[in-house]
Amino acid sequence: MNAVVLASGGLDSTVTAAVARQEGWDLYLLTVLYGQRHQVEVACAKNVAAWVEAKDHKVLTLDLSVFGGSALVGDGAVPKNRSEQDRGGGIPVTYVPARNTVFLSLALAFAEVVQAQSIFIGANVLDYSGYPDCRPEFLQAFQEVARLGTKLGLEGRAVKIHAPLLQMSKAQIIQRGRELGVPFEMTHSCYDPDEAGMSCGQCDSCLIRLEGFRQAGREDPIPYQVQ
Amino acid sequence: MNAVVLASGGLDSTVTAAVARQEGWDLYLLTVLYGQRHQVEVACAKNVAAWVEAKDHKVLTLDLSVFGGSALVGDGAVPKNRSEQDRGGGIPVTYVPARNTVFLSLALAFAEVVQAQSIFIGANVLDYSGYPDCRPEFLQAFQEVARLGTKLGLEGRAVKIHAPLLQMSKAQIIQRGRELGVPFEMTHSCYDPDEAGMSCGQCDSCLIRLEGFRQAGREDPIPYQVQ
Repeated sequence: MNAVVLASGGLDSTVTAAVARQEGWDLYLLTVLYGQRHQVEVACAKNVAAWVEAKDHKVLTLDLSVFGGSALVGDGAVPKNRSEQDRGGGIPVTYVPARNTVFLSLALAFAEVVQAQSIFIGANVLDYSGYPDCRPEFLQAFQEVARLGTKLGLEGRAVKIHAPLLQMSKAQIIQRGRELGVPFEMTHSCYDPDEAGMSCGQCDSCLIRLEGFRQAGREDPIPYQVQ
Repeated sequence: MNAVVLASGGLDSTVTAAVARQEGWDLYLLTVLYGQRHQVEVACAKNVAAWVEAKDHKVLTLDLSVFGGSALVGDGAVPKNRSEQDRGGGIPVTYVPARNTVFLSLALAFAEVVQAQSIFIGANVLDYSGYPDCRPEFLQAFQEVARLGTKLGLEGRAVKIHAPLLQMSKAQIIQRGRELGVPFEMTHSCYDPDEAGMSCGQCDSCLIRLEGFRQAGREDPIPYQVQ
């Protein structure tokens, strides 16, 4: 049975791929390059694809920066060293317009071609409470689109959306990854790495990751510019 | 008030743009290049954008051919000279996996950035009965995704999906386009044009278009290789 996994090379999507592999799916990884600053994630995603023994790994370039509208696609500075309280308030500037809708729709296209029964996404409500497209009701609505808008759905084989990390804390995700033997040194989370690809240690994503490792009582194996 | 219009340079999307313009929206056109054979449509879309006085026109390249899976993205021959009966049966090989889901998700990203209240799409159930993602229930489900998965939706300004041609025959679409002064010579429908961009006159899309003009009692102003 085939499953498409959205794989950014980040910590969450890598643990998600590991969960899918443990469940016994044949994995088809999809990495979407969306004009973000951290193209280093592609190299990570390739290593992850090899590690999970993916049947196939597609890398799709999609220049969302033509629309502008978010710090992650080049319009505005990535905020640094924000407190947990500041990070919790409202929709972050790193929100990419309709990102998960776009990602899931591309995963759906891939799923139709490889006749996959499932799409796995590393969406998470706790650390990304400000992102509307990480909420369970959004994922449920997208599953309905997948059922109604595809040949697979018409044939009664609608694709299911799986978000196994949806309700987990970062520490729980790290713990789950450890149990599954995830090579965290392969993964990458920074919104704003330097030219060599080294994580900044100060953006929201780095801070959440570092706190997650601390709470899990583990050391993050990747190097940081500042920590 | 802003509206995003999915504009392929084809007949249906051009009439759709004309309808949106007549309703008084400020138009933001989006053309998605998805590795299809008929990139000539971009040139058409640019002319259409000028004709409807679009505030902006974005052209986004998205190589869906990496997934394979359809005649329109380079995997298999485009069928020619099929009867209406043959064309009506099941899902055509020209069906592109999850195409409208992908297009609408990109339109949604654009809509978030320009704070659009509407997305217009030239979807049509009659001529494309085999395409699951041209059905009203699919469009309704996508509207729910747009409401739940975006910042605009969270703020109570959810984007509406408009498909003004949904229940019209091709002859009715042509008639509506005539009333709105649509320059049909700017538009292009062929799945398999020659290198100079001339329409084949034999693929399903050409046959449907030509029959539509006949039924509307009009002459199609574009040239064909065979007619």
